[in-house]
Amino acid sequence: MAEPHCDGLHLDPAIREQARQRLLSVRGHVEGVLRMLEKDSVYCVDVLKQIKAIDGALDKVGAMVLRGHLRDHVATAARRGDTEAMVEELMEVLKYR
Amino acid sequence: MAEPHCDGLHLDPAIREQARQRLLSVRGHVEGVLRMLEKDSVYCVDVLKQIKAIDGALDKVGAMVLRGHLRDHVATAARRGDTEAMVEELMEVLKYR
Amino acid sequence: MAEPHCDGLHLDPAIREQARQRLLSVRGHVEGVLRMLEKDSVYCVDVLKQIKAIDGALDKVGAMVLRGHLRDHVATAARRGDTEAMVEELMEVLKYR
Amino acid sequence: MAEPHCDGLHLDPAIREQARQRLLSVRGHVEGVLRMLEKDSVYCVDVLKQIKAIDGALDKVGAMVLRGHLRDHVATAARRGDTEAMVEELMEVLKYR
Repeated sequence: MAEPHCDGLHLDPAIREQARQRLLSVRGHVEGVLRMLEKDSVYCVDVLKQIKAIDGALDKVGAMVLRGHLRDHVATAARRGDTEAMVEELMEVLKYR
Repeated sequence: MAEPHCDGLHLDPAIREQARQRLLSVRGHVEGVLRMLEKDSVYCVDVLKQIKAIDGALDKVGAMVLRGHLRDHVATAARRGDTEAMVEELMEVLKYR
Repeated sequence: MAEPHCDGLHLDPAIREQARQRLLSVRGHVEGVLRMLEKDSVYCVDVLKQIKAIDGALDKVGAMVLRGHLRDHVATAARRGDTEAMVEELMEVLKYR
Repeated sequence: MAEPHCDGLHLDPAIREQARQRLLSVRGHVEGVLRMLEKDSVYCVDVLKQIKAIDGALDKVGAMVLRGHLRDHVATAARRGDTEAMVEELMEVLKYR
């Protein structure tokens, strides 16, 4: 849980809006695959390709949020004095990607 | 390209239904993150955690479809005589995961 | 464990030699990073870049071995009658890459 | 490029020594696979398992170096005034892991 930081650190509004737009497109993509999966003639590799594309789109949303986090919250941690907590929390979320 | 196989090789119906159920849950998860992103108090790391969880859920759908593909289509390729095409197509979709 | 297949299924000699050549170069790369790590002026990001490059080189060795395995052993599984074991074993090694 | 930071930012000596120890063990592991690849009876999946294990060991070295970098160099970036450069450089090396 991110408790100690919650009161002060928020996702940058411009990044938040961009992430939302991209995630709307991810949702559309997921719905496309759901429609594919309704057809009994669907071919496995076509589903795998779509899942891989969605994975890539999600990674881009993640990269966008991560960049904002590093810039706005991690780079300022020494000034706030919460470096240790910020680093552990981030390592946890980066773990085994 | 999946062309040469399209007419004969289909995703197993039981796997297709399971994949669909899981993907419905992925869609719900994406919608949850979309709601998070509407709040200006959202914290970056909480978004990153959710994206990571969605990534993991998608990977499970992919693994399910891949297992069925290996069993039903790749393991039978030598019998059908399309080994080379099946392998190249699969390597393409497994690439840099 | 690969026990049931060990007696019959071997890595293709040409792939084995190519994989060996590439892995020799991976070892050289690892030794380069070991030398970097002996200097107290080494910069973290330079180490991370080298580790990423080694990761990529290892993945290429893995892809080469995997392609041969799919072609020579998985695509022929239905003929041998060991599809289930071959698929489970492969899924295990592909898991969360 | 890491140019602007090179003169001041160094990998923490304790982490450097730990990373070196772990990388020595990675080198030993690579040499083990090289020996496997000299035998014509080697089985593909056994090679794939070893490559995956080496990948995991390398990732741990990377995580160790990354944690030190976040703590010692990224968390202090706002104080030094090089946040933008530090973030871009880090995003580059984290990209598609």
